[in-house]
Amino acid sequence: MTAVTARAHTNIALVKYWGKADTELMLPQTSSLSLTLDQFYTDTTVSFDDSLTSDDVAINDQRLAPAASVKVRHVLDLVRQQSGETRFAHVASMNHVPTSAGLASSASAFAALAGAASRAAGLNQSRTELSRLARRGSGSATRSIFGGFVKWQAGTDDASSVAVPIQEDVTWPIAMVALVLDPHHKKISSTQGMQSSVTTSPYYPAWKQVVAEDLAAITPAILAQDFTTTGEILEANAMRMHALTLSANPPYSYFNGETLAAIATVQALRASGIACYYTLDAGPNLKVFCQEKDLGAVTTRLASQFSADQVIVAHPGPGITFL
Amino acid sequence: MTAVTARAHTNIALVKYWGKADTELMLPQTSSLSLTLDQFYTDTTVSFDDSLTSDDVAINDQRLAPAASVKVRHVLDLVRQQSGETRFAHVASMNHVPTSAGLASSASAFAALAGAASRAAGLNQSRTELSRLARRGSGSATRSIFGGFVKWQAGTDDASSVAVPIQEDVTWPIAMVALVLDPHHKKISSTQGMQSSVTTSPYYPAWKQVVAEDLAAITPAILAQDFTTTGEILEANAMRMHALTLSANPPYSYFNGETLAAIATVQALRASGIACYYTLDAGPNLKVFCQEKDLGAVTTRLASQFSADQVIVAHPGPGITFL
Repeated sequence: MTAVTARAHTNIALVKYWGKADTELMLPQTSSLSLTLDQFYTDTTVSFDDSLTSDDVAINDQRLAPAASVKVRHVLDLVRQQSGETRFAHVASMNHVPTSAGLASSASAFAALAGAASRAAGLNQSRTELSRLARRGSGSATRSIFGGFVKWQAGTDDASSVAVPIQEDVTWPIAMVALVLDPHHKKISSTQGMQSSVTTSPYYPAWKQVVAEDLAAITPAILAQDFTTTGEILEANAMRMHALTLSANPPYSYFNGETLAAIATVQALRASGIACYYTLDAGPNLKVFCQEKDLGAVTTRLASQFSADQVIVAHPGPGITFL
Repeated sequence: MTAVTARAHTNIALVKYWGKADTELMLPQTSSLSLTLDQFYTDTTVSFDDSLTSDDVAINDQRLAPAASVKVRHVLDLVRQQSGETRFAHVASMNHVPTSAGLASSASAFAALAGAASRAAGLNQSRTELSRLARRGSGSATRSIFGGFVKWQAGTDDASSVAVPIQEDVTWPIAMVALVLDPHHKKISSTQGMQSSVTTSPYYPAWKQVVAEDLAAITPAILAQDFTTTGEILEANAMRMHALTLSANPPYSYFNGETLAAIATVQALRASGIACYYTLDAGPNLKVFCQEKDLGAVTTRLASQFSADQVIVAHPGPGITFL
């Protein structure tokens, strides 16, 4: 019985993934692009054990009930299929995301699980193969296999829907400041939200075009370290994703009052000459993209309006590693 | 010198007007549909006077500076063109909209101005002609010439862009509850907001289709007094308009934190069996559409969460009258 531990970091999408094309294979409606972050990661240890009569899954030292571990067991089943491994597994996962951070850990968790399970089963898979496997647990996990700027190519089938690195070693002095406004679970899961947008928003077809154009424009901007273009695209892309929630039937929103106040603060900072841009996912928490030289001004302002423990500074982080 | 006084009521759009096709003629991108309200109105008195050397415009007993009366003088110029009247005019307008109501008075104000100026100049214009004239002051004023449920037909030129009554005498026991969350002027005017949406939102073409479909569906629902269908359409339509602001470049929003809280309250009321639906225009204030039988429950709940003076009950109101 070999125990393998993998570490994967979470990521923040700059061009959002918002909509599944195939819920079984977890194929997305569009490609997406993210930045892997250094501050938030998951360590997951997997070992196959012939004394087990079912998979034994624990997260943060809490054993999961079978109903809560469906996706984990699904990834383990895929690994067993691919490797011929027949035993059940111990899975112990530790999320090094501040418990109050309100940041989704599914990206880092399923990327780490894919890596640890694959290697524990004796597979010697490439990172491309691991990103394909991670995708089956959580769409955004596809991207967390790689570090830095990463594109998840939508693809058309299981084989082609994988992540590719855009730039793993990021020398650009930029930061992503997480502003935690609500640590609680979302009322509407991203899966539910996506499904509602895809099926009921009249704007969804135009969103797919938005993503195609934003990806084409942001990729060279990132490589050229063009901060303004990158910031403008990521902010507009996020709000165009959230416009899908307002335009769904029934309409809904992930914003709360503090989200709007924080957005106003970012706009005020920008008006005062501190270049920074915001993005947000399926929840009220803002992430503020800024340059390293402005990090002090941005964090000071946010901490004065909210509180210091709501402000977490992250930088570009690495891809999956084995410990 | 004959003084004529006209009274016109404001209206709330159930299918929104959001975008100009011709800013000089004030032709809209789409048709729209509204309910004229009884609680908020403007009385405007116009008299042409050969002792004047310029138009003399006062609103709520305050004389307007020339820069503030451009649109008023534009409507007066059109009346002079149509009538051959050569004198300047006294215009005295009283807005009977609670000053704290944060409700746009431009619809009632320009409808009343059009009626009073036209008649003071000796024109004997039909209400259709008055709606065409009112349009040149403010798009939404086009609809305030008529009472009850009113459609503004987009048209293709000055002659064809007029309001038509859908149902002036409303027997349906419904109410519109105005919840005043911010009495201040909007940071982004509706004209600016519309222009931004038309020119920068990738969802704007789909919005035009939304409006066409909503108008086709809401008109028979209103005539059939189908409350649920009418409510679902007006709520979704409003949010699809606001989705245009989020998807503009740069993105913006008319919501504030209380807007989101009030929306949650409407949803909670509905979940508890009190059928009601919200709409909102280019500002944070909510208007809640409900049935007369539920008016007590709705206003009690809103007044307990906000305050009683923020809650104003309106019912279907009449078209233009001359006093």
